[in-house]
Amino acid sequence: MPGRTARRRVLRLALPDEGRPGAAEHRADLLAGEEPLGIRVDGSALAMTMRTPGDDVELAAGFLVGEAIVTSRADIAEVRLCDGTSCGHAGHDGLGNIADVTLAAGVTVRPGARRDFMTTSACGICGKTSIADICTLPRAALAADEARFAAATLASLPDRLRDAQRVFSRTGGLHAAGLFTAAGELVAAREDVGRHNAVDKVVGWAALDGRLPLSGHVLLVSGRASFELVQKAVLAGIPLLAAVSAPSSLAADLAEEAGLTLVGFLRGRSMNVYTGTQRIVR
Amino acid sequence: MPGRTARRRVLRLALPDEGRPGAAEHRADLLAGEEPLGIRVDGSALAMTMRTPGDDVELAAGFLVGEAIVTSRADIAEVRLCDGTSCGHAGHDGLGNIADVTLAAGVTVRPGARRDFMTTSACGICGKTSIADICTLPRAALAADEARFAAATLASLPDRLRDAQRVFSRTGGLHAAGLFTAAGELVAAREDVGRHNAVDKVVGWAALDGRLPLSGHVLLVSGRASFELVQKAVLAGIPLLAAVSAPSSLAADLAEEAGLTLVGFLRGRSMNVYTGTQRIVR
Repeated sequence: MPGRTARRRVLRLALPDEGRPGAAEHRADLLAGEEPLGIRVDGSALAMTMRTPGDDVELAAGFLVGEAIVTSRADIAEVRLCDGTSCGHAGHDGLGNIADVTLAAGVTVRPGARRDFMTTSACGICGKTSIADICTLPRAALAADEARFAAATLASLPDRLRDAQRVFSRTGGLHAAGLFTAAGELVAAREDVGRHNAVDKVVGWAALDGRLPLSGHVLLVSGRASFELVQKAVLAGIPLLAAVSAPSSLAADLAEEAGLTLVGFLRGRSMNVYTGTQRIVR
Repeated sequence: MPGRTARRRVLRLALPDEGRPGAAEHRADLLAGEEPLGIRVDGSALAMTMRTPGDDVELAAGFLVGEAIVTSRADIAEVRLCDGTSCGHAGHDGLGNIADVTLAAGVTVRPGARRDFMTTSACGICGKTSIADICTLPRAALAADEARFAAATLASLPDRLRDAQRVFSRTGGLHAAGLFTAAGELVAAREDVGRHNAVDKVVGWAALDGRLPLSGHVLLVSGRASFELVQKAVLAGIPLLAAVSAPSSLAADLAEEAGLTLVGFLRGRSMNVYTGTQRIVR
């Protein structure tokens, strides 16, 4: 079965430095696991992602939320990892690297879903003139979410997320995503070599637990905030996305359009609030 | 036209800390640009990537190298940004967000290209049993590259790459990739919100300049080393990939299989050598 980490022999080199002699030693090092996960929906291949094994059922469910294919637990009949019987290849080595999703009756993958936009128009993005055209988000989707968040509580979240990280401190190779209540209570934390996967795992856990939309919650990511992460937060109904590092221009633009509060550079005792400042209480 | 950076008004909050009073001020902040780039090959949509605008022609060329569609300058007839005439939509706002690639006569996008593997088999990855099956890399592709690299030279590269970064220090939001000679001379450096894009821009520049394969060169990335980055390095013929942070398990596995030297945690005066240690001279 795929592993969250892998042990590997490594040559550690240290050059001479300020009078200290150099050193070279072979030793064991722990690396973050990375393997492909295929996501099949109703028997058809939908996507492949390179991910850290673990929480794969949640990853698949969260991916579908982020693609606007499902919006609640009721839209998903079942998610399970291929055990070698559903594909007729019993006994092969790829076990656990395919997630099979069965949608509820009446739920389908729309041909006009976001990932298809390049192929459904002769001009592709070239003919798109606004953010609203390149994603399926409802405008100002979160405007009605009246949750408020204390700046002091937000400032405490990065330490709480780090405390919850099981693998990162051992491998140095993982992104983390954490879901918190407005009071700062950690609800779920997941890790992955891909930051989008870490978010999908958290959102998928919530989806399968019947918790969508995640009104009144904070999503914290350990790295930067991209367009894609903003989109995932909005589709999960999360009113506040916080990042330890910088957001991109499009992340801020989309956050503003969707009514999401976007916080960046959340470090130590300070932060930047890019959009939705009305939700932040000093 | 799309920009490398975007200026945005932000609320900077500092909480009271060790006797210092808190503060809140609105100020201008510079964000890393992020916009979609569509890549069309011979008139058909191939891929879409969220990238930082700039060096888009190089990004498209490098992407094709990383997909094993082209291997040299001779495989590419032309790459240009859509100017609103090739798509018949003159005057629209999407200018500059589509790269049109024309391949040389006889060069085609193979139906069996890597990205298609999920859809060309009933079982998908489930039937794949080794790394060799999920990518198109020739086994031990780089074994014949006899270049050697001094550890002391490698240790100097992160500072050189940081010196070359134009946008990062202002936005905090970009990954960087740098191509160096074995002597430590910087050949090309590029930045992007996506680390794979930064590598594609560097490799695409080299491809369009007729420099592939990049024997005897080092590729340095500012973050982590994933499977995908190892694959891009190998397909560009680069014998050594160095990362400031951690590699994943699959990055190390693929590097070993392809004969690539993989260095991680290249910081200060030390580094970890995961594969291909014979190329490192102490």
